Amino acid sequence: MTKRNAFYAQSGGVTAVINASACGVIETARQYSDKIGTVYAGHNGILGALREELIDTSKETDETIAALRFTPGGAFGSCRYKLPCVDTHRAQYERLIEVFKAHDIGYFFYNGGGDSQDTANKVAQLSKQMDYPLTCIGIPKTVDNDLPLTDCSPGFGSVAKYVAISAQEAALDIQSMCDTSTKVFIMEVMGRNAGWIAAAGALASQKAGDPPHMILFPERGFTRDAFLNKVDETVKSEGYCVIVVSEGVHYGDGTFLSASRTTDAFGHVQLGGVAPTLARMIKEALGHKYHWAVADYLQRSARHIASATDVEQAYAVGKAAVEYAMAGKNAVMTTIVRNDGPEYSWSIGEAPLSDVANVEKMMPDDFISEDGFWITDKCRKYLEPLIRGEDYPPYDANGMPHFARLNRVYAEKKLPEFEV
Amino acid sequence: MTKRNAFYAQSGGVTAVINASACGVIETARQYSDKIGTVYAGHNGILGALREELIDTSKETDETIAALRFTPGGAFGSCRYKLPCVDTHRAQYERLIEVFKAHDIGYFFYNGGGDSQDTANKVAQLSKQMDYPLTCIGIPKTVDNDLPLTDCSPGFGSVAKYVAISAQEAALDIQSMCDTSTKVFIMEVMGRNAGWIAAAGALASQKAGDPPHMILFPERGFTRDAFLNKVDETVKSEGYCVIVVSEGVHYGDGTFLSASRTTDAFGHVQLGGVAPTLARMIKEALGHKYHWAVADYLQRSARHIASATDVEQAYAVGKAAVEYAMAGKNAVMTTIVRNDGPEYSWSIGEAPLSDVANVEKMMPDDFISEDGFWITDKCRKYLEPLIRGEDYPPYDANGMPHFARLNRVYAEKKLPEFEV
Repeated sequence: MTKRNAFYAQSGGVTAVINASACGVIETARQYSDKIGTVYAGHNGILGALREELIDTSKETDETIAALRFTPGGAFGSCRYKLPCVDTHRAQYERLIEVFKAHDIGYFFYNGGGDSQDTANKVAQLSKQMDYPLTCIGIPKTVDNDLPLTDCSPGFGSVAKYVAISAQEAALDIQSMCDTSTKVFIMEVMGRNAGWIAAAGALASQKAGDPPHMILFPERGFTRDAFLNKVDETVKSEGYCVIVVSEGVHYGDGTFLSASRTTDAFGHVQLGGVAPTLARMIKEALGHKYHWAVADYLQRSARHIASATDVEQAYAVGKAAVEYAMAGKNAVMTTIVRNDGPEYSWSIGEAPLSDVANVEKMMPDDFISEDGFWITDKCRKYLEPLIRGEDYPPYDANGMPHFARLNRVYAEKKLPEFEV
Repeated sequence: MTKRNAFYAQSGGVTAVINASACGVIETARQYSDKIGTVYAGHNGILGALREELIDTSKETDETIAALRFTPGGAFGSCRYKLPCVDTHRAQYERLIEVFKAHDIGYFFYNGGGDSQDTANKVAQLSKQMDYPLTCIGIPKTVDNDLPLTDCSPGFGSVAKYVAISAQEAALDIQSMCDTSTKVFIMEVMGRNAGWIAAAGALASQKAGDPPHMILFPERGFTRDAFLNKVDETVKSEGYCVIVVSEGVHYGDGTFLSASRTTDAFGHVQLGGVAPTLARMIKEALGHKYHWAVADYLQRSARHIASATDVEQAYAVGKAAVEYAMAGKNAVMTTIVRNDGPEYSWSIGEAPLSDVANVEKMMPDDFISEDGFWITDKCRKYLEPLIRGEDYPPYDANGMPHFARLNRVYAEKKLPEFEV
């Protein structure tokens, strides 16, 4: 086996633990120094390959690479850029292969969600068509937990933990004050089409009667009357009402509750503002004093309260990607497999990239309660293990986390510029 | 010295560490069992005294009281209720004294912000007028850090730490994605009139050029052009722009930027929605893709990332309140004193309640940079020690914090009902 270089890139929205996957890839590749030369990281995902902006990770110390494990964001830069159709934009694919050839890239590790696994799949197909030997391994990542064929997606467990803890803390606040002040608190969380993150809010409730009192899922059409009735009942019986709502909640006809509607590069509608919309609705109909929070990026970057399970899994899918490549596997994504048995345990598996690409995994029907406002025991059993354990980053004496700072040395360019 | 009972109450908006003060009061009172009988906690602050709803803290175990140290919210219930003027509402004050007499309350510990210290002051004056022997000690609390005569207010350090860390984490996220996605991120934080919490966002920036790039203070009138110019420059030079904005930011004429305007029981305008307002302004003028977050109650209840310094100080002002009462002091609030010397250290002091009541401490002029968008070195030197150290709550095996759950046994009522 000839020694060849590797390309690693981060794609799509970043998470609190995507760098833990990078850490897994790079540390493991360093252990295979007889087979893998340099790991080049794409600056801003696949764009780094197209533009030949390759960060030479061999210029980073072992300490810096180890620190990636507890550093949020995408250390090498990520992108919202989907490779266009092969038939109409063949030049982009040819450019990729050219860059890989120029830098003797034999391994392609692509760390992202469903759209990104589609990119990895296209690259795998094209390298075969173009007869360029390239091992393509996908590494799962998405806070939305909507990737198929993996029990969960690295990134999700940490958002879930953040949302559950934040909902619990805020609920204690509202509970303290509800007699004379705020009676309704609405916390808006991410989740365009899948309600996994909102569902995690229910983990704040550890015994019957604990807040939050309602979860709103994008998997269920929103009905104003049913919603207001439930809020009204809850305020009457509990004195206050805590609601966790997914940004993607919409009416039965598909109209989003949120006001702001712009579109990102993947054609996804950019949402935001469900919480204030619901707050106004409650104020007008029931007159309660309200507060609302929109956690937005805070939730997906909250490395300070990451789930230890999630961090371990994120590292493991990166590590396994390199091991699978070394074992001669190709065109697969590493996955998390939930083992059978009464106690939660997991192992690493694989799924063909072609089966993962562009498939979204919604909450199953039997994970949402009959009234549509809560999770079932089955869902709780699924979610609970994913937030287990704390994995704190180290802190400086001044009380701030000590995150990795990269040197970011770029490989010398060998090709002419390419306009993306 | 005859043994008498104590009354403790929490007032105003709660914090991540107000229960640490309660813990300090109750644990210390238990050490003076020869002089202090039962500590009764008012259910929902001063209302608990008026309604004779007294939680008997002697029915809580030492373990539960110890757990208050790491439990957010107000464990006994707080209130937004300001005692009305003595002259027009004398009945309320007489009722208070009646309840205190009925339960042999000799010590009054009131834990709150400026409005609440005003209440404590009125109670101290009235008990003297009515010739009822009562020792009144105020215990400072407010996330806004706007209490006078104390170097800082317990509650602030933990919000400051949360805001600094959240801004840093979110900035790493935006930085990763700015080439093809979000270019502007706006994080709205609390602070009606004083910009202390927003200022803490600057601690995320640890060396020149680090984000965030702008802080907006309520102490400076907002100017659309200056703001947009700075955003434009920053996006051009850095590729992205992270802004921390205080909810109370307003134009030079006093008009708030936020849309929602309702009023709470203290007559304060309830704000919210500055971040989306600024986001729209940027989108219209500069066209950048944006994201915004409104942390709201998440910030002031975030016990999971409390400042160890803040927790220690919150406990210490509660402990000292009891010790001061034992030493015969009266009508004072315990304070945090910053000691002289090159290294940060602090001790406990006192201030007359009459000097603390209803005074708000804004950011000094020399804490805000000349362009109005950043903090000075002097401000940084003041803020930095307040977020030092981590003080994590214990976690259950299921990954959730193990907060205190009280029995809440009420003292038997001895008086007729009283309508508040």
